[in-house]
Amino acid sequence: MFLYTENFDGQKARAMAGLRKALSEKKVDEDVIPLLERINSLDNYFTTSSCSGRVSVMEMPYFGDKVNSVWLGKWHREVSVDEVLEAIGKHRKGQLWFLVRSPILHVAARSVEDAVGLLNLAVGLGFKYSNIKSVSHRKLLVEIRSTERMDVPLGEDGELWVDGEYIERIVGIANAQLRRFKGKLKRLEDEVGAKLK
Amino acid sequence: MFLYTENFDGQKARAMAGLRKALSEKKVDEDVIPLLERINSLDNYFTTSSCSGRVSVMEMPYFGDKVNSVWLGKWHREVSVDEVLEAIGKHRKGQLWFLVRSPILHVAARSVEDAVGLLNLAVGLGFKYSNIKSVSHRKLLVEIRSTERMDVPLGEDGELWVDGEYIERIVGIANAQLRRFKGKLKRLEDEVGAKLK
Repeated sequence: MFLYTENFDGQKARAMAGLRKALSEKKVDEDVIPLLERINSLDNYFTTSSCSGRVSVMEMPYFGDKVNSVWLGKWHREVSVDEVLEAIGKHRKGQLWFLVRSPILHVAARSVEDAVGLLNLAVGLGFKYSNIKSVSHRKLLVEIRSTERMDVPLGEDGELWVDGEYIERIVGIANAQLRRFKGKLKRLEDEVGAKLK
Repeated sequence: MFLYTENFDGQKARAMAGLRKALSEKKVDEDVIPLLERINSLDNYFTTSSCSGRVSVMEMPYFGDKVNSVWLGKWHREVSVDEVLEAIGKHRKGQLWFLVRSPILHVAARSVEDAVGLLNLAVGLGFKYSNIKSVSHRKLLVEIRSTERMDVPLGEDGELWVDGEYIERIVGIANAQLRRFKGKLKRLEDEVGAKLK
């Protein structure tokens, strides 16, 4: 038997102190703050981390080596072709990738029933990769995540494999994905208070 | 309270009949069959679906519209540049994408403790996107999934945005990702019987 229900209120108090600190240090993506506040106002949930979704240009020694990866550019909003080209211009070594990542929210729930309630609501609003990420004595953790994603190799060791016109195309697709998942975040913000306790 | 534990043995019998049918119709990815057999030999688990991971070329009206998407080529093994070029040659309309997808296994567990045991084993073996996908009276379902993935736009409405040299590069990266996740599948096959009941 896991003891996350017994530990819920203590863990929530700790997480809320951490969130207040992160907010005061401007370390929380701004457009997701109203959603976090709604979730944390509920009795049976609290947020532990969040990203509002992003477009980025990243240099990595090889795919998946997060530790040694460097962001050359990162945007939580629609991005211009010029901004992306400027980031690409900083590339020197390793693999160069253009990436889109969906929003991710981690939300602890008081019980399995509460976790499933949030999970099903999120899936129904288009966050189709949502799941229960982990279960331990400390926390029962729901991950809210959507399907939008791009992983496009652009070059290696300073050499570019694509032209400016291609960059223009993929920036257009990325911005369309970003508008889609920002819309889903807004709908979740609208519904989470009405549908859950 | 969810009743998946009470329903486990009945659901397992039903799933095993479905698997035998799928096997007889050659509808199961061959290289994942030994792993499925190991998992299904355990008392507290059964598999409900699986994909051993793949590289594909897909035409879709827009990203995420699975219903109207068409595979122009799909491989559960390393692929050659010629095979990919041949698939690309069939493209006529919509968005053209080159995709890599990690293996995905769905495994029902008898209890939350059993689900967490499998989840933690899978994460530890490199299947870092593994999670509990859903909880209902019928099933407590673990998803085993890894991080390897590519989503590369190649063109639209018959027009190609990249050249043959670029295709060569991304096929090389895709095959490296495929070797990586096939290795993880093998390790899971080796360990699942020893570590779980």
